[in-house]
Amino acid sequence: MRTESALTAGPGDFFVAQPRQVLLDAAKVCGHFGPPTNPRGKYMSLKRRQFITTAGIGALGAAIASPAIAQSAPEIKWRLASSFPKSLDTLFGGAELFARTVAEATDNKFQIQVFGPGEIAPAFGVVDAVQSGQIEMFQTAFYYFWGKDPTFCFGTAVPFGLNARQSNAFMYQGGGIDLFNDFLKAYNIIAYPGGNTGTQMGGWFRKEINTVADLNGLKMRTAGFAGAVLSKMGVVPTSVPGADIYPSLEKGTIDAAEWVGPYDDIKLGFNKVAPYYYYPGWWEGSAMLHLGINLDKFNALPKNYQAILKSAAAYANGDVMARYDALNPAALKQLITSGTKLRAFPQPVMEASYKAAQETYAEINAKNPTFKKIYDAYMAFRDDEYLWWQVAEYNYDNFMIRRPK
Amino acid sequence: MRTESALTAGPGDFFVAQPRQVLLDAAKVCGHFGPPTNPRGKYMSLKRRQFITTAGIGALGAAIASPAIAQSAPEIKWRLASSFPKSLDTLFGGAELFARTVAEATDNKFQIQVFGPGEIAPAFGVVDAVQSGQIEMFQTAFYYFWGKDPTFCFGTAVPFGLNARQSNAFMYQGGGIDLFNDFLKAYNIIAYPGGNTGTQMGGWFRKEINTVADLNGLKMRTAGFAGAVLSKMGVVPTSVPGADIYPSLEKGTIDAAEWVGPYDDIKLGFNKVAPYYYYPGWWEGSAMLHLGINLDKFNALPKNYQAILKSAAAYANGDVMARYDALNPAALKQLITSGTKLRAFPQPVMEASYKAAQETYAEINAKNPTFKKIYDAYMAFRDDEYLWWQVAEYNYDNFMIRRPK
Repeated sequence: MRTESALTAGPGDFFVAQPRQVLLDAAKVCGHFGPPTNPRGKYMSLKRRQFITTAGIGALGAAIASPAIAQSAPEIKWRLASSFPKSLDTLFGGAELFARTVAEATDNKFQIQVFGPGEIAPAFGVVDAVQSGQIEMFQTAFYYFWGKDPTFCFGTAVPFGLNARQSNAFMYQGGGIDLFNDFLKAYNIIAYPGGNTGTQMGGWFRKEINTVADLNGLKMRTAGFAGAVLSKMGVVPTSVPGADIYPSLEKGTIDAAEWVGPYDDIKLGFNKVAPYYYYPGWWEGSAMLHLGINLDKFNALPKNYQAILKSAAAYANGDVMARYDALNPAALKQLITSGTKLRAFPQPVMEASYKAAQETYAEINAKNPTFKKIYDAYMAFRDDEYLWWQVAEYNYDNFMIRRPK
Repeated sequence: MRTESALTAGPGDFFVAQPRQVLLDAAKVCGHFGPPTNPRGKYMSLKRRQFITTAGIGALGAAIASPAIAQSAPEIKWRLASSFPKSLDTLFGGAELFARTVAEATDNKFQIQVFGPGEIAPAFGVVDAVQSGQIEMFQTAFYYFWGKDPTFCFGTAVPFGLNARQSNAFMYQGGGIDLFNDFLKAYNIIAYPGGNTGTQMGGWFRKEINTVADLNGLKMRTAGFAGAVLSKMGVVPTSVPGADIYPSLEKGTIDAAEWVGPYDDIKLGFNKVAPYYYYPGWWEGSAMLHLGINLDKFNALPKNYQAILKSAAAYANGDVMARYDALNPAALKQLITSGTKLRAFPQPVMEASYKAAQETYAEINAKNPTFKKIYDAYMAFRDDEYLWWQVAEYNYDNFMIRRPK
């Protein structure tokens, strides 16, 4: 068994070995493209045979080497539309890391150009644009597409759902990726986790929330699933674009607004117009991003490019979370220094929210079997996770937070 | 700007474009290997020129295509020695996932064969074997090498250190990877995070621990940093190989033993010979694995292979954690059903342990500036992390654990 590196086995060995392997690859290529899986595949196969014949015996090396490259390293340029503005550098940076990793792993042969919202697709139009094949990829938070089907929310966050590490466990080792991609097939999309924000904050409030009754009539900038649950407690969810939140809070057009967490929120200056910063954002115990790909285009990729995409997405998935964890502490300190008053939602508010979420789940489950299928798997997984979490993880964090200083 | 996929642009376009790209690559290759960075590089460069000359004009394609493959897709076979037995499928499985990802991403051109401890290197000999170049890679927990230098522990876990997500934040976005690889240069090794167990359990005890005094004289299977701290409280750390822990606990040769957590521990049957299962393992609030590579061999790789290794390691890093999180809950349930008594270390025991750890840190810092350099960065990062953690993350988990059921 030869286990030494080809690079260390000596150059003679290396150069003798190379053409032999290429021959084997050429054989594999012919097998790969025949029977062709699509009309293009067939045409390519014919073209290759033609090329080999034309080149003749004298250029055997060329004839053999070229198909090997054609199989595993075609030049591809894709476009990725992000739903996040470049100013959210943690999120947008995850898409950039992903694209850079794919480019580096393929010697720049597979290039994915990353665009901000509105450049090639609207922020909330990225699913449509990839479904139709207008563009190849997106980076998004699937819960934006709650209006199409609330099942999309399981890709990002649902009220009282999994925390960030548990979301990874569900996706990578709890069958979540397959379950979610089964759902996405109807949209001709395959997606992989591509980042997380961790537990988000509950948002900025102009007045303190002391009782459940204080929520009644509260005009709050929020949307989707969170809005549906909050409205059961009398909150009036209002849709306000990011740039308009600050003036709306300042004027009192809205009473509260939730965005992400310290690092992202401080950029928009909410601390200057709302004194109370509540936690936790129970509607997103974590918020997972996804990198979505047109399914036909994914299937048409060579297997090695598919592997590179999956691996680079997993890299970005961990890296975005690391960015938030590394950047949030300094932003939190800055907020506290600037006078922001941190407040936990009172326990009765948390419990009323939990009850309202259960009612909302029951309503959706009753009429949406697609939702219920993932709901059942997801919630069973969540209950098991927290059974385990309360032991070592939680108690370690608990001591570390309260440790002697 | 051409943004269409080469695969969708039509086969004609594709095949015309291909040879042109190969020419450009050949030019890059010559630049890459000259000036040579090592004697082998120089020799390879000469050989390649010879090969091109011999092939002659008639085989121009071969002469051009072959170096392109040499640059970005050479055939390489490496060997990776894991410090973990195959029976620890969560850990060993991480090395297998890593190797499989690299193979898939390179169309099986870069193959890394994974070996268990003792097959090509002893479990605790993997650093020596990779440093000397006898093998190319290892998968290990760096704290096994505490005896060489306690600085190694920062690669895995230190008492009252970062939890798993915070470890990722430190490594990927807090400068940790570079800081740690600076340290590893002296061993001619570069390493990337490659998995985590999460917070480990405190271990199996034959008798309850109610006071700090109960630790005095306790013979406990543990090692390294944990042993040094525990011995300050009167514990007698004893080194017992995995297979001997069960009979030693059964006979009372030892009073306690720590291993990992429910999923791994139940395999060794500790629950049958020790009734009390303590948490948390404060000496490993998380335990990070690393995939280590001989630095010369890493530097000799084409850039795209380096990128593939880094990305596959990050994939494995997240995946091993996901495995533990997905598998621990069922094992915990099984332990509780079998009569295991879960116990939290009493707060005074935690505080005495914390104090003993601070004393140990002070002693090491006083004589080891390499340790102190990473210690200062690591602990400042940890304090910031827990400042932030106590807000949204901790309170979300707290509610989820105590939520109405």
